Amino acid sequence: MKILQLRNILLGCVLGGFLSLLATPLSYASDEAVYKEAKSLIKKGLASDVGFEIVESLTTEIGPRLAGSEAEARARSWGEGKFRELGFSNIRTEPFLVKHWERKFEQAQIISPYPQNLVITALGGSISTPPDGVTGEVVSFPTLQDLKDAPVKGLEGKIVFVDEYMTRTQGGSGYGIAVRKRSGAANEAGKRGAIAALIRSVGTDHHRFAHTGQMTYEDDVTKVPVAALSAPDADQLQRALLKGTVEVNVVLDVISQGEAISGNVIAEIPGETDEIVLIGGHLDSWDLGTGAIDDGAGIGITVGAAKLILDLNKTPRRTIRIVMFGSEEVGLIGAKAYAKKYRDRLDKHIVGAESDFGAGRIWKFDTNFAQEKLFLAESMHKVLEPLGIGRGDNNASGGPDIGPLRELGVPAVTLKQNGWDYFDYHHTADDTLDKIDKSDIAQNVAAYAAFVWMAANLNGHFRKD
Amino acid sequence: MKILQLRNILLGCVLGGFLSLLATPLSYASDEAVYKEAKSLIKKGLASDVGFEIVESLTTEIGPRLAGSEAEARARSWGEGKFRELGFSNIRTEPFLVKHWERKFEQAQIISPYPQNLVITALGGSISTPPDGVTGEVVSFPTLQDLKDAPVKGLEGKIVFVDEYMTRTQGGSGYGIAVRKRSGAANEAGKRGAIAALIRSVGTDHHRFAHTGQMTYEDDVTKVPVAALSAPDADQLQRALLKGTVEVNVVLDVISQGEAISGNVIAEIPGETDEIVLIGGHLDSWDLGTGAIDDGAGIGITVGAAKLILDLNKTPRRTIRIVMFGSEEVGLIGAKAYAKKYRDRLDKHIVGAESDFGAGRIWKFDTNFAQEKLFLAESMHKVLEPLGIGRGDNNASGGPDIGPLRELGVPAVTLKQNGWDYFDYHHTADDTLDKIDKSDIAQNVAAYAAFVWMAANLNGHFRKD
Repeated sequence: MKILQLRNILLGCVLGGFLSLLATPLSYASDEAVYKEAKSLIKKGLASDVGFEIVESLTTEIGPRLAGSEAEARARSWGEGKFRELGFSNIRTEPFLVKHWERKFEQAQIISPYPQNLVITALGGSISTPPDGVTGEVVSFPTLQDLKDAPVKGLEGKIVFVDEYMTRTQGGSGYGIAVRKRSGAANEAGKRGAIAALIRSVGTDHHRFAHTGQMTYEDDVTKVPVAALSAPDADQLQRALLKGTVEVNVVLDVISQGEAISGNVIAEIPGETDEIVLIGGHLDSWDLGTGAIDDGAGIGITVGAAKLILDLNKTPRRTIRIVMFGSEEVGLIGAKAYAKKYRDRLDKHIVGAESDFGAGRIWKFDTNFAQEKLFLAESMHKVLEPLGIGRGDNNASGGPDIGPLRELGVPAVTLKQNGWDYFDYHHTADDTLDKIDKSDIAQNVAAYAAFVWMAANLNGHFRKD
Repeated sequence: MKILQLRNILLGCVLGGFLSLLATPLSYASDEAVYKEAKSLIKKGLASDVGFEIVESLTTEIGPRLAGSEAEARARSWGEGKFRELGFSNIRTEPFLVKHWERKFEQAQIISPYPQNLVITALGGSISTPPDGVTGEVVSFPTLQDLKDAPVKGLEGKIVFVDEYMTRTQGGSGYGIAVRKRSGAANEAGKRGAIAALIRSVGTDHHRFAHTGQMTYEDDVTKVPVAALSAPDADQLQRALLKGTVEVNVVLDVISQGEAISGNVIAEIPGETDEIVLIGGHLDSWDLGTGAIDDGAGIGITVGAAKLILDLNKTPRRTIRIVMFGSEEVGLIGAKAYAKKYRDRLDKHIVGAESDFGAGRIWKFDTNFAQEKLFLAESMHKVLEPLGIGRGDNNASGGPDIGPLRELGVPAVTLKQNGWDYFDYHHTADDTLDKIDKSDIAQNVAAYAAFVWMAANLNGHFRKD
């Protein structure tokens, strides 16, 4: 089995190298020819299942892949293998260290007056409770701000409950507001003497899934364990509180010590110059679901788009680099490692774009280009427009893992997806393959393929000259 | 506290008795007056939240209430208390025994080739596995019939997986077919030497909830543990099987020995004769959710409808008896106990109707009357028609707990609900209050109030004369 695998790997490398020798050098095609090819890639993308098939492979063969876990290591092997299988070049894993955190056990119960279980999940980074948990009266705050406005001290022995709702929007703007309680609840509870914090999940569904996500303790704050309640359980707790005093027991058992290995998995379509167009998604996921929409989809969309370009068998002007970032969920650790490693070559990165907002249709083309290069955004947009994509603004974030590059001056693009349903599944056990629509993800692959081809071949880049 | 409770109980009884003395005897009103009152009850029902409030109270203050559990005992106290609070008469609990079964722990994992957790839940009545579980290769069968068609013996050491789908229908007819695998999978697996059985959940959703439900071992069959996979996990297992051999570990820890106390909670609106109109729902629920649609809704609808009638302050011709059946989920144990206890008085039961199909709108009025009494069904239907309720057939089941009475000749009515979404939540952790629409449940209360008033007061009954 091992020898066979090695043979296949060697065969893949040889074949890949051979094919790239065969590839016709583009030799700086005219912009017109670039747009034409981009349009043909859109047709191919819409007719292809390559994006879906990559997510299917990742979520089935690996499943959940928590940052720093053994499963994330298997995902990196999968990533290298998938890049090889598809014929990409310069395949490598660039390792880095990440803090080790792992969920072992979690449970919550109303003790009185209405004994029953509550569905919770520990937030990433939370400390454990003692083995029997913590038991206390629940004090509810409608919003994080209400908790912040409460006197310092005064919640000694209590369990704080921040019952703040999240607004559902197409663009996901409700998340930025609602997510503050993820760190804020525990930190403000700790400052006031509370023994634990609970939050209504940062999410938009009404199912019995608690949404996890990373939280960070402030320095010099008494650390208290923190967990999220599913929306129906937050409702239930709130109803019980309307009837009187409620006592709850919370048990969290997590491992949170030392460091573990993580890494970015990278492959390329080598170009004729040393300029780089960077696309990607993140390989890690939370541990509860199989990470289909977050962010198997981003991996499928960007690798799938690059595969369509690879199959053109034409050498692009610039190198197309596809990055499967590691350990995004726990603080953009892979993105920071990448930015550090390539800090002397970031001027060669002409643009970065990450897909990390599910698999909903792209409806907007946001850029972060120099003002004088916006005409290029306009002409690229014309190619994307038939996909139902409008021209957005020039404040593109580029996606979470592009953030550290953008801060260092790398131009960014966001192909903004419809996120109306995204936070129904985000960071829950319910983030599974069946939540992805094949025709929606194909539209994403089509748009990325066209955009990447244009970015990699147009005469001119997106920075100030 | 105890003395206070006693005082309240006595006060409730005295007040209840006093109010019933005050009630105006109807003294056999004309059928026209009965229809008119029924129409007024529809208006009141549509404008009332009484049904929803009862479900809210039950699901919040008790939550899950497994047959024979301490929680079901609390639910009986709640039921008696709610009947008292609302002013009903002849309130009592009629106890019986039920087999004790309880879920302690459940877990499943793909061991190879793609290690990851699978969401499962033990079926009610299943035996435990050894503490470390059972581990074996999965053999998949598209339907229960395919498993039945497999040779006796030949699955030694294997884990059988019955991947049969359920059809979504308005009337719920897909359930009767799909539910057969709940007992069938384990029994057929046991006959063939398998070590465990897994089924695709009997349900219609695509969320990561496994659906539990009762199963029964055949006599003289080797008992094997059996659990249901959520739909996304059944998909995942099927995808893994398409790629090759899959080994799974299943751990179930259940308590299954001895008997426990259960009971039916009963109240009445006394009539002028000894004839009885019986309505009700079941008080027990599965342990995973809070039993809102199954069957808090049935309790809310029938108790709420009776409350509207009680508030008319008119003594009906016949006694209206409301039954909160115990231990329905584990084999209609409360229904059988009722039929046994009242076997000599069933001829006085002029009709029985249970609400046990969620809180969706009623769309059909089914009866099971003597042919010569169908004209009464037609005239009752005319009153219900403005609620969007069509005339159904004359094969009404009357609901699960009416079954034993119907077999003994008691006429039955089914106010058939829209069950399109019912099996999305049925027997899952996601069966919670937020799944009930207030205006839908009000339509149910309106229909039941009108039907019960007519059944309790019309000149003529529904049997053969």
